[in-house]
Amino acid sequence: MKRIAFLLVAFAAVVGIAVLKAPASGQADGQAAPIYGVKIPSGYRDWELISVSEIAAGDKSQLRAEFGNDIAIKAFQERTLPFPDGAIIVAQHWAKVSSPDNDKILSLAPMVAGLENPKSFVPGSRINAQFMVKDSKKYASSGGWGFADFKDGKPGDEALHKTCFPCHEPAKAHDYVYTHYAP
Amino acid sequence: MKRIAFLLVAFAAVVGIAVLKAPASGQADGQAAPIYGVKIPSGYRDWELISVSEIAAGDKSQLRAEFGNDIAIKAFQERTLPFPDGAIIVAQHWAKVSSPDNDKILSLAPMVAGLENPKSFVPGSRINAQFMVKDSKKYASSGGWGFADFKDGKPGDEALHKTCFPCHEPAKAHDYVYTHYAP
Repeated sequence: MKRIAFLLVAFAAVVGIAVLKAPASGQADGQAAPIYGVKIPSGYRDWELISVSEIAAGDKSQLRAEFGNDIAIKAFQERTLPFPDGAIIVAQHWAKVSSPDNDKILSLAPMVAGLENPKSFVPGSRINAQFMVKDSKKYASSGGWGFADFKDGKPGDEALHKTCFPCHEPAKAHDYVYTHYAP
Repeated sequence: MKRIAFLLVAFAAVVGIAVLKAPASGQADGQAAPIYGVKIPSGYRDWELISVSEIAAGDKSQLRAEFGNDIAIKAFQERTLPFPDGAIIVAQHWAKVSSPDNDKILSLAPMVAGLENPKSFVPGSRINAQFMVKDSKKYASSGGWGFADFKDGKPGDEALHKTCFPCHEPAKAHDYVYTHYAP
């Protein structure tokens, strides 16, 4: 009887874990982006990190984080190319802003982490998020990837989405993905 | 019999999940840092992202990612202060390097994401990783936090670790933590 009870607890735990994990599994909701029909995968902010990056133009810059669902992360870690169907990659872009609070602290130490008089920059507001969804059959004409660009939860227009694949085409040797896994 | 078999599968699944999750649960291995005795928590690179940041000094900069274990992430998301015992926060620091490959692509588009002639920066080699481990009793004399700074898997010396708490003290109102959860 005790064993059965234990197994039942184990079973409940499995169901519980399945329920908890559901939002991060790539189920999508909300509006679909034009051309590819990609929706925002729920829970992507909790996905594992592929890398971070910055796009800078003068004093206007973005801090970025690239997340992957479990299929994408596994492929990055095992250097699997092409990415398997089901892989989803997200690039979250924030405005890069300075942190006066952090700078005040940094100013107390002339040298931090080998850097002289360093300044701190952190994510400000969200700018947009970009998604790549691998489905080699559905998206055969765009390298097996469906693309989407969302701002405030709303997809960009068709003209914007026409620029996605041409911009990723030069990265064909890495299955159209620019981001590399950060060490 | 079928039910028993199913429960056994469920049980195996739980054990399997437990084994898979173990490296990310905060178990530590390797050398301990001086003063606080903090070791590197295994699997932290797979933890959820708290935020990204940059520390810049002239042309020498670092891209950074802050990760949290489940206890820390929950506290950040629910704005729980002070952080509960068991919370671990990691700051992974990389050299910020330019990406000529990305820049070549960006140069084809005069305007990317609202930025004119942008340049791309990505993580280079790892510089160091810093850890904060919450244990309000064990680390009562340093705000409840144990600190550690590791480079290439090896902890810094005692002199370095003496600087951790004084530098975090000004952030007392946010339980000595500078990083905020990125939106």
